[in-house]
Amino acid sequence: MAEQTVTAEGREIAERVGRFVREVVVPYERDSRWGAHGPSPEMVEEMRGQARAAGVMTPHIPQGGRHLSHRDTAIVLEAAGFSPLGPVAVNVAAPDEGNMYLLGRVATAEQKAHFLQPLLEGRVRSAFLMTEPAEDNGAGSDPSMLRTAAERDGDHWVISGRKCLTSGLLGARVGIVMARTGDAATMFLVDLPDPAIRIEHVPDTLDSTLPGAHPSSRIDRLRVPASAVLGEVGQGFRYAQVRLSPARLTHCMRWLGACERAQQIACDYAVRRHAFGKPLVDHEGVGFKLAENRIALQQCRLMIDWCAGVLDSGAAGTTESSMAKVAVSEALFRVADNCVQVMGGTGVTGDTIVEQVFREVRAFRIYDGPTEVHLWSLAKRIKKETLGRQHP
Amino acid sequence: MAEQTVTAEGREIAERVGRFVREVVVPYERDSRWGAHGPSPEMVEEMRGQARAAGVMTPHIPQGGRHLSHRDTAIVLEAAGFSPLGPVAVNVAAPDEGNMYLLGRVATAEQKAHFLQPLLEGRVRSAFLMTEPAEDNGAGSDPSMLRTAAERDGDHWVISGRKCLTSGLLGARVGIVMARTGDAATMFLVDLPDPAIRIEHVPDTLDSTLPGAHPSSRIDRLRVPASAVLGEVGQGFRYAQVRLSPARLTHCMRWLGACERAQQIACDYAVRRHAFGKPLVDHEGVGFKLAENRIALQQCRLMIDWCAGVLDSGAAGTTESSMAKVAVSEALFRVADNCVQVMGGTGVTGDTIVEQVFREVRAFRIYDGPTEVHLWSLAKRIKKETLGRQHP
Amino acid sequence: MAEQTVTAEGREIAERVGRFVREVVVPYERDSRWGAHGPSPEMVEEMRGQARAAGVMTPHIPQGGRHLSHRDTAIVLEAAGFSPLGPVAVNVAAPDEGNMYLLGRVATAEQKAHFLQPLLEGRVRSAFLMTEPAEDNGAGSDPSMLRTAAERDGDHWVISGRKCLTSGLLGARVGIVMARTGDAATMFLVDLPDPAIRIEHVPDTLDSTLPGAHPSSRIDRLRVPASAVLGEVGQGFRYAQVRLSPARLTHCMRWLGACERAQQIACDYAVRRHAFGKPLVDHEGVGFKLAENRIALQQCRLMIDWCAGVLDSGAAGTTESSMAKVAVSEALFRVADNCVQVMGGTGVTGDTIVEQVFREVRAFRIYDGPTEVHLWSLAKRIKKETLGRQHP
Amino acid sequence: MAEQTVTAEGREIAERVGRFVREVVVPYERDSRWGAHGPSPEMVEEMRGQARAAGVMTPHIPQGGRHLSHRDTAIVLEAAGFSPLGPVAVNVAAPDEGNMYLLGRVATAEQKAHFLQPLLEGRVRSAFLMTEPAEDNGAGSDPSMLRTAAERDGDHWVISGRKCLTSGLLGARVGIVMARTGDAATMFLVDLPDPAIRIEHVPDTLDSTLPGAHPSSRIDRLRVPASAVLGEVGQGFRYAQVRLSPARLTHCMRWLGACERAQQIACDYAVRRHAFGKPLVDHEGVGFKLAENRIALQQCRLMIDWCAGVLDSGAAGTTESSMAKVAVSEALFRVADNCVQVMGGTGVTGDTIVEQVFREVRAFRIYDGPTEVHLWSLAKRIKKETLGRQHP
Repeated sequence: MAEQTVTAEGREIAERVGRFVREVVVPYERDSRWGAHGPSPEMVEEMRGQARAAGVMTPHIPQGGRHLSHRDTAIVLEAAGFSPLGPVAVNVAAPDEGNMYLLGRVATAEQKAHFLQPLLEGRVRSAFLMTEPAEDNGAGSDPSMLRTAAERDGDHWVISGRKCLTSGLLGARVGIVMARTGDAATMFLVDLPDPAIRIEHVPDTLDSTLPGAHPSSRIDRLRVPASAVLGEVGQGFRYAQVRLSPARLTHCMRWLGACERAQQIACDYAVRRHAFGKPLVDHEGVGFKLAENRIALQQCRLMIDWCAGVLDSGAAGTTESSMAKVAVSEALFRVADNCVQVMGGTGVTGDTIVEQVFREVRAFRIYDGPTEVHLWSLAKRIKKETLGRQHP
Repeated sequence: MAEQTVTAEGREIAERVGRFVREVVVPYERDSRWGAHGPSPEMVEEMRGQARAAGVMTPHIPQGGRHLSHRDTAIVLEAAGFSPLGPVAVNVAAPDEGNMYLLGRVATAEQKAHFLQPLLEGRVRSAFLMTEPAEDNGAGSDPSMLRTAAERDGDHWVISGRKCLTSGLLGARVGIVMARTGDAATMFLVDLPDPAIRIEHVPDTLDSTLPGAHPSSRIDRLRVPASAVLGEVGQGFRYAQVRLSPARLTHCMRWLGACERAQQIACDYAVRRHAFGKPLVDHEGVGFKLAENRIALQQCRLMIDWCAGVLDSGAAGTTESSMAKVAVSEALFRVADNCVQVMGGTGVTGDTIVEQVFREVRAFRIYDGPTEVHLWSLAKRIKKETLGRQHP
Repeated sequence: MAEQTVTAEGREIAERVGRFVREVVVPYERDSRWGAHGPSPEMVEEMRGQARAAGVMTPHIPQGGRHLSHRDTAIVLEAAGFSPLGPVAVNVAAPDEGNMYLLGRVATAEQKAHFLQPLLEGRVRSAFLMTEPAEDNGAGSDPSMLRTAAERDGDHWVISGRKCLTSGLLGARVGIVMARTGDAATMFLVDLPDPAIRIEHVPDTLDSTLPGAHPSSRIDRLRVPASAVLGEVGQGFRYAQVRLSPARLTHCMRWLGACERAQQIACDYAVRRHAFGKPLVDHEGVGFKLAENRIALQQCRLMIDWCAGVLDSGAAGTTESSMAKVAVSEALFRVADNCVQVMGGTGVTGDTIVEQVFREVRAFRIYDGPTEVHLWSLAKRIKKETLGRQHP
Repeated sequence: MAEQTVTAEGREIAERVGRFVREVVVPYERDSRWGAHGPSPEMVEEMRGQARAAGVMTPHIPQGGRHLSHRDTAIVLEAAGFSPLGPVAVNVAAPDEGNMYLLGRVATAEQKAHFLQPLLEGRVRSAFLMTEPAEDNGAGSDPSMLRTAAERDGDHWVISGRKCLTSGLLGARVGIVMARTGDAATMFLVDLPDPAIRIEHVPDTLDSTLPGAHPSSRIDRLRVPASAVLGEVGQGFRYAQVRLSPARLTHCMRWLGACERAQQIACDYAVRRHAFGKPLVDHEGVGFKLAENRIALQQCRLMIDWCAGVLDSGAAGTTESSMAKVAVSEALFRVADNCVQVMGGTGVTGDTIVEQVFREVRAFRIYDGPTEVHLWSLAKRIKKETLGRQHP
């Protein structure tokens, strides 16, 4: 089935990243500078300094913008995800990872120098301003509901609207703003912060890994030059697709690593903790959960590898990445839920990262398109294929 | 099936409590004094002042210690649970509710005057020091692993050991300490704080409703007089059972109320928010989840009512409360999970209480015995009954 | 919650029916005259003869058409269902039970004498010709797609169309035919067999309890007098609703009894069969399944009792019976599936009735409206109620 | 991840087998000679004659006993499984396929000539007499409970005991009998029928694909020469393992094909059948099920491919085949169950093979070790690995 495969380079990088995360990043998990809105800027900077020193900064884009294959990326990002802080530490976290990917594909040389290069170096963070508030019935799962609008004004564009759930916006230096331009949509590159983009609300969220939280903001007559257009005017939805499939999949990769870790923690607990005369793991009610987890983790790894292979073949992979996203996010949630349950009272405390992985993975079932939206588009595809088979 | 039923008094109290929670308590949900370790003491005091004024303080024990039937209690506590803050506001929250129940059944008149009365008045909070650290392989799901020990010393007892996950311990004034006395266990009543009970660690936890958090503590030669023994020496495990069945069930009652609320919020969202050309609720992927929730909520209500009826009949209800606890906690978790999913990105923010209800209900699948422990004891019961049927 | 309750008469009847089923009907389960299309006519007659002798024929309609309350009916039909053959033996099986209910409510005195009385005496069987073939896109879950049409011809009606999945049609003597009359639908009473109703196909089906199978037929210019109209012309859909809620619920009652039996068989097996050094029941992987079943069976009983109470109050119970049907059919399927799994290789053989119960209950998730259709109508109801709550 | 891959030869064979099954075998699905105990001998012979003519007999062992790789076998057997009759028609069905594999690995040249060659040619069928009756507490999921015993008698062995659920025994010509020899177990090759092996009972079973049913038999002083020992005396359990991992996996391959077919049938139905104003597939309640199926089928394919790769590497693959068996059998059951549900009333009839696939796949969750037994051994493995990680 698999034609291409993981390279020796990919393996070597993944191994280095994994060692760095286990040895350097994991101890930061107990750092008090990590709060409900993610790790503090100082803590991020400190971890990244060590990543640079260890040669594992932005490891999936090794030199000058050359990007590893998706298959190689898979094992590198899984290794990074072994700690929830790992992806931030080595600069493969959302949304920066997806934004770097997009800029690498679509940006001009000037845009790359100004916006992409600092991101690749892990010196700044970025935000993708796409989702809009439910109370406005703006763009959510259905991007066609986009309300933020850009109007041409001579050599400039003037953008107004509201955005929400913009991951990482607090402290970000690079913004990609999605706005309606006539009947189509366009992406604009923006230096942040900008006084025309005012943060209105920073909600608490179930997850707490990302620096920069998930704020809501109001864009009020943001004025940008024509050179701020990313790619071509009117191609915003198409670029969103370019970003989307790989971005969905890198989420899967990172959280697979995190759930492997949660499983290890739960296994350690289950062989150590006793109840009713034997270690927990010898109770089938516990042991079966760990066994189911092991199966699920393997299934996730295979789905990621398969979808990465499709992307590596040059296909858009929209259907395949929807399938992988649904399968992996739902499976990892059950894995994390099982880990919590196995650990009993300890599982609901922050004394291990299991509790946090559970929260993050819950959110993952919604981020990048809730399961239901993917099933909806898969059903459409199935209908089309079935009609095609019936009337070839 | 149901012989006894809810009384007019119960209905009237439930209605008053429900109105109070909707009108007075719900607005406190946005109060910034409510943090990760529960609402602040000031906030609790303020809400309770209003509850007293409204005549809904400790509403299930209306006058002088007379306790409503379990069936009446069910509808009162469901009404209180409509806000996660409701049970604390009207003084029907865990662990106080269960502790009041236990003291009402077992304590001497002197103990009642000293320990129970202030609890009934909602002037103090209490803690039940039972669970012990996993790293010590102490008492958890298996209470027989109790390691904290009390030794007789003349007219006194001296207690030493470690406890953890003691809900509400921070700021509590009444403590019930479970300790090994020889081959059996005994409960002791303690005024808190006491220098011999030192808080070692206050973990973050998935849930955040309770004032007083879930600390770990070390008990170091705590000296109490013989009059501190609750009930009889050596009857600790039996009293734990007295407390256990009703306490499990009141958890079910309160969280049923909370999930009814989450369902209302999700329904409101689903009729308001549009995607792909129609309101979310018109998408079967959303509407079916809300329909499943409605069915599940009804099933929970019926299980609670049934088990309450068993308790009202005077039976211990150990099996029935295990059945109810498993059924209700697992069902409510699916309800809350569905609500989060229906609300998409909004569902994982703290902008509504849905996100919090999800966290609390996750913990409920573990508190008061994880699902697996109840299934284990039910399986034992089934074996015994089957053998009895085969060889009558 | 429950205002009315089961009567002493109901209990006494249920007890007699239960004894009859255990002592007389259960042995028939090994009778070779019971094949893939249900028990043979001789076998049915033989069992019914014994039922008459034991005074348990049509036990829910004790004298002259007086019908027990729905709550009393629940325990009687559960007792009958303890063997898959029980309902046929004591004449409480579908579709006769629902047809008797409908005729008792709507038929004229003459129609009752001619059509209902022989049914009440268990001397004939009946069929409800409603569902139409998928290949015609006829009436299925969506009754409005009804294609069979009746046209007025003087004092007569002439009916043509196709029907399918008509349970019990082979050998039935009473037919209720649903046909379009203009924009509405009308029910017609027909003596069977009739040469104008030609059986085209008798499919094998997953279930095999019912005498008379589930044939397809073609109705070709069936001529009936005006007196054959059941109730009023154009009220067919309304009468279908009259029949529907109770009929759904009696399905639940009977299959609850069958699944109680399957659970007993599985429990017996699990205490007797050993593996890996102990009885199966002592393996949590087995014991937990039996424990979950016990909880599920209790939930089913409570949902049935609740919905029966609603019907007894005089309400139509459309929503409640949808809720009960979904909850009970889905839960009983899991119960039956667990029983099969617990029994391993023995579970997939016909050596016990567990295998058959599994097949029947699978079909039950579709009969009387698949789960999805009920969720769909519940979602519509939720939308309406939510809008009503928002804009009272 | 995948190092080796499917060959061009494998693809070519799979394509030919697939075409044969679609064009020649599928029409036999409506043949009345296919009954509850499988297709009749005449029907099998007729289909196999066509398979020989088409050059697709025993396609995974192309010439003189050379066996395709497990990965190539996977796609060939999936293609064969597209009809439930396909595996029998092209001679890749259980138990023959596993028996041929075992004999190919362990039998002497003489044994191969006598027992294996006719099997390879598809001229005879075989049976593996391993499982023993539950009422004797004989060998089931726990092979160590083997009770059938062989005693040395000069140059011969005399075997006595009872067997049950021996798939394909009716009409089989080759028997492999597992019997206790002292503390160990030994396999014996037997020509069938033999008067010392008396069939006692032929149960009806949920599945109905296999010719030869699943009889129980009594072995009464069966006398075989020393040359009848397969491999070495006392190595029976080891050989059972040799057979087990690949046999589990070929089950997965065949049923994957069958479920792909069921999915196609359900998709065809869902685009054709209307309800409530649109085709079923446009109802999310239906479309989502088909989408989930598509994801599940892909996951099954990946698990099979992965496990086949492990076996091709020469590893025993015990853990991996347990993981694959659990994952695939449970997933395919949900797929088949969804297909039944999508098709409504039609789904529970034998008018399409969906109903049969549902029954077969249900049994598959038990055959070759119920899910619970695999989880149990996985849990043991996890414990061992965790302890090894903690104390390397």
